[in-house]
This record gives sequence, structure tokens and C-alpha cells, in this order.
Amino acid sequence: MHASPACGITSNVSFRTDRGAAMTDPTDPYLIISAACHAGLPTERYRPYLEAGHHRAFDDFLGRRDARRAEAARYGARHHTSALKWYEDNEEGLRGGWDAGRRVKELDGDGVAAEVVFPDAGTADGGTAPPFGAGLDPAAGADPETAVAGARAYNRWLAEFCATDPERHCGVALLPAGAETDAVVAEVHRARESGLGALLIPAGWDDAAPYHDRRYDPVWAAAAETAMPVLTCAGAGPRPEHGGHLGIQLSEAAWWPARPLWFLLWSGVFERHPGLRFGVVGAGCWWLPDLLWHMDRLYLGHGGRTGSPYAALKRSPHEYLDRQVFVCATAPSRHELARRYEIGVDNILWGSGFPHPEGTWPHTREWLRRAFHDIPVGETRRMLGESAAEAFGFDKRKLTRVACRIGPTPDDLGQPRNQAPVEASWRRARETGRHWLTGFDFPFVGMGE
Amino acid sequence: MHASPACGITSNVSFRTDRGAAMTDPTDPYLIISAACHAGLPTERYRPYLEAGHHRAFDDFLGRRDARRAEAARYGARHHTSALKWYEDNEEGLRGGWDAGRRVKELDGDGVAAEVVFPDAGTADGGTAPPFGAGLDPAAGADPETAVAGARAYNRWLAEFCATDPERHCGVALLPAGAETDAVVAEVHRARESGLGALLIPAGWDDAAPYHDRRYDPVWAAAAETAMPVLTCAGAGPRPEHGGHLGIQLSEAAWWPARPLWFLLWSGVFERHPGLRFGVVGAGCWWLPDLLWHMDRLYLGHGGRTGSPYAALKRSPHEYLDRQVFVCATAPSRHELARRYEIGVDNILWGSGFPHPEGTWPHTREWLRRAFHDIPVGETRRMLGESAAEAFGFDKRKLTRVACRIGPTPDDLGQPRNQAPVEASWRRARETGRHWLTGFDFPFVGMGE
Repeated sequence: MHASPACGITSNVSFRTDRGAAMTDPTDPYLIISAACHAGLPTERYRPYLEAGHHRAFDDFLGRRDARRAEAARYGARHHTSALKWYEDNEEGLRGGWDAGRRVKELDGDGVAAEVVFPDAGTADGGTAPPFGAGLDPAAGADPETAVAGARAYNRWLAEFCATDPERHCGVALLPAGAETDAVVAEVHRARESGLGALLIPAGWDDAAPYHDRRYDPVWAAAAETAMPVLTCAGAGPRPEHGGHLGIQLSEAAWWPARPLWFLLWSGVFERHPGLRFGVVGAGCWWLPDLLWHMDRLYLGHGGRTGSPYAALKRSPHEYLDRQVFVCATAPSRHELARRYEIGVDNILWGSGFPHPEGTWPHTREWLRRAFHDIPVGETRRMLGESAAEAFGFDKRKLTRVACRIGPTPDDLGQPRNQAPVEASWRRARETGRHWLTGFDFPFVGMGE
Repeated sequence: MHASPACGITSNVSFRTDRGAAMTDPTDPYLIISAACHAGLPTERYRPYLEAGHHRAFDDFLGRRDARRAEAARYGARHHTSALKWYEDNEEGLRGGWDAGRRVKELDGDGVAAEVVFPDAGTADGGTAPPFGAGLDPAAGADPETAVAGARAYNRWLAEFCATDPERHCGVALLPAGAETDAVVAEVHRARESGLGALLIPAGWDDAAPYHDRRYDPVWAAAAETAMPVLTCAGAGPRPEHGGHLGIQLSEAAWWPARPLWFLLWSGVFERHPGLRFGVVGAGCWWLPDLLWHMDRLYLGHGGRTGSPYAALKRSPHEYLDRQVFVCATAPSRHELARRYEIGVDNILWGSGFPHPEGTWPHTREWLRRAFHDIPVGETRRMLGESAAEAFGFDKRKLTRVACRIGPTPDDLGQPRNQAPVEASWRRARETGRHWLTGFDFPFVGMGE
């Protein structure tokens, strides 16, 4: 089923400069990087990673866990019958949430050469939250200083965890961005020096300043300087407002982590920090095409006119998006993949979501076949790994050895050896692309016949 | 240019029961209802409509207006050079914001037979806000009792205003829904008895309970009983968070008024109150197709299974949408009109936005021609008036006389006399429709040549 170790994937390293020539050899395995995986210790085991001065607060935090778990259970997401069965059936592999040895076996089984590691191993009982919510969960109620201490503890453990196989794990440091700026900037550099590769900020700023505020400029500058993408992740949101209605929570689950995108964009953060990269994680990408259309329309409607209210930007929103923004989409739907020419093929980074139940594990190979069988191989390579390698700085040359051992091939994904009809089937969609820029004011679908 | 008074439009009254037979006689004028217009007195003139006990508070409110105007000016929306020129050029017609005689002339000029009237006449200086923000503008800082008093004052004036030509004006009462329930329910009935036809609730609940709360059930019941649609409107949003960045405000301007939709839906309000109708106003409808897809997917993913977390619903989200929800779209874009088969043709109610600068006035006839020339006549009739007549209870028989006098015809809109090619051009889009329900997992655009 897998290609030989002498597989031709190494020629793929220069793909970026050779975009036109899609790698379509059906025996070249995919170099797959999951841009959205999760890991975390059972909460109580963070104690040794926490500075001693915070141990008493940590004991209090553990004591309040039961109430939070009961609250989480009201939502039912992890507790209806079929979900519980999933956890039982996969108990062994779920230990890969914090056991590095087990984890690599699961990645191999999925054909995933490397991964970006976010917090919350997602156990059925919600028992792997970082200390004090680590600034991501306002409901945890920690003061800023305590939140930073909790983040440091998680980050220390994560650096150890990723160091077991640094080529395959890119750890995402928790960064309570709303805390005191100097401490936040220091944690960016400390995290980078410890081997971590990206930064997760809270999607909401709670009582801190919104992300358009200039007080964050040193944080964005440090992120750009260290080449650590800044990320927001689905999952928080104002739960008390949702009244226990899972449908309400999930209807707006993508919106809260997406919101910082337009706060950064319109306040000129991407203009002032061209080296900053920003990603939205675990929220799919279905909300992005129309948002991008809407924002471009606002900007272009004032293009070049004096007195534009968008003077902080020198480019259209889509230009900043293509230069600096991406989505890490866990198990993206076929509908979302079909809209990749609007979103930007290079802006979609696939994720398995391991070990979360909403992800593709432990059936990733079958999932990939179902999702990608009729998508061009060259685009599949971008979304499954190439773009993530660039965004997070993976060493593709080293990973190629892993990919040659475990990576599924286009054949394995059911992609036809003759790609010409596949390419042709997407011609209209590709030509339409971002319809507001290509002259297709009405989508192509309404134009022909 | 216009059809004779003996025009055939009356046969259109039974359109609802005769959906298949589109009225395509090119000399039948359109019965156009703008589902989103605005009116309001210059603020200081509400004093006589306000109960005496609130006069002192009103004087304080007026005193604080300058600060609010300065804040509004920071956003630039109404104050950049081209906008100011627009206000100057249209000064005469803008008096139609509160002068009923002038208003009817402007409606006639636009070919609009009837209208749904929302607050805020939208003058350049923002000087037509209802007293105390009337519960719609949390920044106005009124306590709930004062907010209700302000709403009553506006509603009294509006009832007088609409009574000048009740067939053509459907007034939307302000309803600070978060105030004491008995007072809110009383205001629903008082508003209905005074001749008003719909209810505008704040898009955000501020310190009150979110709209999933059972405390609102008597309000929804009263709205259903009086056949007054409940509406939310773009415009509020948490401005202090936006830091004066217009792009941030407008990027999420549709989201805040849309948010109550999923709070009502998932908490079972539409299930418990099948007679309730809910509309989102002035926020376009570009955000709706993917939201609907997302919500249907959540629900259908648990369809019929035991332990579904969506047990409050007996139907799919799209079924509630088609039964009870609509959008009043001011000057919808061509892109939004092209997605009408996903949204539901019958769920889109066109609005001119008169007298707001983002609307189509005073060039509505030209605007309609540009927007609708290649859309089928039958669907155009639904979106331009039929659906609004049903949602708001307009008397189509009486309005037909007005429409025969002023309404543009399909010829005027540049719609071909032979509609067959127009219908054919939309066949693929119509067949794809809600792609998640029609089996087009990938949009049609990617499937064929």
C-alpha cells in the first residue's frame, strides 16, 4: 500500500517555486501534516510544571473542576450515547493525548507525518484542561498573572512532549495575550527558545483591550520576529449566554475565533507587521468566502477615494489574507473544499483533529479518500501538507523520510492517474474563483446553459 | 412608461396559491413593497409624545447627544466627503424622513407602493434617534422603564405618521424586549391597537436574559397572537469594542442582528410558537446560505438518534426558516440575489432603505433594472412585494391601485418578454438549490464542464 523508501517525494521540496507542475506521480506519497491536533496532560499532572507559588491556587482550581465538568455535560456534546461509545472504543489510542510513544503510533496509522499540537486532549470527561484555563477559558476566572503562570506550566510540558520527536511535533504555546505586555512578550521568546513553534491567543479579550489596540503591537512584533504564527481556536465563546443549548453554541462556534481576524485586519496590524501570520483553528472555513467578499467590497467601494475610512490599509483584505492568514480546518467538509478557489487553496491547512471525536482519527486514510478523490493531486498536496510546512516551518526534507514510510499515495486516495479530467471538472470553479474580482458578479452557476 | 390603471395586476393577488404560473405579462406593473424603510422625528420633537414624568430625563438625554454625535463622526461613515455631498444633494427629499406628504412623493418616484417603516431617518448628523435610544442603543444608558417610555413615545408618533396613509405604511413598533415582561406584552397590544404592524427588538440583550430564555415566551406569544413579526436590525453592535474602526464595525454588522435567529431557533421558540414570524433587517442576506447549511448539518447529523442534543426541535432548521423567518434586505447585492435558491426565494424581502444613503433611493428604478434584469419575473414579483405583503399583512387589493399608477413593469426593468431563456439560465442553480439537501454535496459549479 505504501511507497518504497526511495520514493520520489523529495522532488516535491521545491514545489513552492514550481507551482505549475503538479506532482501527479501516483506512487509519490503525500507528505501529510495535520495542522490541528491536540495534546494535554490530565490536569492534575501539571503540578510539577507549575511554579511553587501557584500550587495553592492550583489546588483550588482542581477543586472547582467538578462544577465545570457538570456544566460541560449539560451541553451533551461529549456525553450523548454515541459519543461515549466512541471514547470507549478508542480508549487505548486516546492515551496518545499525552503519551508521546503512543501518539506517534497513531499518527503513523493515520498516515500523518507531522502535526501542529494544540491544547485540550479532549477526553470524554474534559479532564485535560491546562491549569487555570491558561487564559483561554474566561470561565476559569484566573487573574492575568495566574493565567500566565498556567500557560507557562502547559508550555513547559508541551516543549518536553514535542522534544521527543521535534521534526514531527510543532507545539503551540498558550499565550494569554491580555496580560501585562512585557510578560507576554517574554513568554513568546521563552516559548520559542524552548522549541515551540506557534502561539495560541484567546479568541475573546474578556476584560482586556480588543485586539485592534496598539498595546498589542509589541506582541505581534515578537510573534513576527520569532516566526511564530498567532492562532485562535474554536471552543471558548460566551457559554453562560448559550443557556445549555448546544445548537446555539455550535452555530456561533466559528464566529468567536474568527472575530480577531477582522480586528487585526482593519486596524492595520497586518499592514504594520507584514511578517506576522495569523490562523483560525478548528472552526472550519465555511464562513470565510463570504466574509472575504464582504470585506473586499467594503474596501474596494472606497478604493482610492479621498477620505476613505479604511486608510489604515494599503491593500485589499484579500491581499492580506493571502499574504498572512490561513485556516487550520479539522476534517473540512466537501462543501468547504469545493470553495477553495474563493478561500485560496494555499490558505487551507488540513487537520485531523487527533484525538478529538470531531476529527478524522482513527480512520483518516478512509476519510482522505472520501474527501479528496476528485480533487486535483497538486491542490491536495498543498492542503494536506505543503502549506502547513511553510506556515509552521517544518523541515520537509526530514519529514520526507517519514512520509515515504507512512504517507498514502494518490492511488491510495482513489485519485485518477489521468488527472486531466479532474482538472477539467474544476475549470469553471477555478476561473470563477473570487467572483467579485474575476468579473463574475453573479456566480458562474447562474450564468451558463 | 407606466401601465394604465386598468392593469392586470389584480390577478396577481392569488399568486400564493398559484405559484407555478408566474405573471410574466410585460405590461403588468410590479406591486413593490420596500420591507426596509426608515422614519423618525428630529429627536427634540418627541417631547409631546413622551409622558410628562420623563421630560426631565429627556432633557438630560438631549444634552448628551453632542457627545454621541462626535463619537459617531469618528467612524466616518456619514461624514466623508462623498457622503456629505449626498446629503446636500438630497436635502429636500430627506425631509420625507418625518414629513408624510413629502415621503409619499418620494415613494411614488421610486415606484414603491408600500413600505415597512423602521426607526432612524438617518440624517447626516444622526439627529433623529428615538428618545433614550428606545432600548435599541445600549450606549444610550437608559434604565428599562425609561427605555419603554421612550419606545412608547416613538410608537405614538409613528402610529400618527402611518395613519396618514395606512395602506402604504406599515409601522414597526420599538419594543425593548428585555424590560419587565408585563410592560412589554402590554406595549405589543397597545402598538397593534394603535395601528402598527411589527415589532423591533434590540439585537443584543445587554444585561437582560438572552433570547433563549423562557421569560420571553409571553412576548413571543403576544407577537404571534397579534400577527406582528418580530424583527432585529443592523446598526447597534458593541461600538466601544470597535475602537473607531469602521471596517471592524461593518465586518460584523450583520452578525449581531442575525444572532437572535439561532438563539430563538435552537431553544425551540419557533417550535413552541409556530405563528411567530422573525426577520433580520438591513443586514443583507449574504451570511444566510452557509449559516443555514451549517445549522441543518448539525441537526441532520443527529437526526432521529436517541440522545440528540437538539431535542427541542421537531424539524430541521431550514423548515423553521421557510415557515417563520425572512430577511428584509436593503439594496441586496447581485451576489446575494444569485444565492436566492439557497436562502429561499420567498424568504428575501427587498428594501429600498429610504432615506438612508446605503439604500437605492432616489434612483430605485434604475437600481431595480440593474439588479433584476436577468432574474425571472415570477421570482422578482415575490422578492419585490408578494412576500412582504404576506409577512406584514398588507392589503394587496388596495395597493394594486397604487401599483398600477406608479409601479415599474418587467419591460421597465429590462426583463425580456420571452422569459424562457432567463428561466433556463438559472436551471442549474435552481436544481442545486440547497446543495446539502439536493444531493449536490459539492456545488454544481465544480461538477460539470
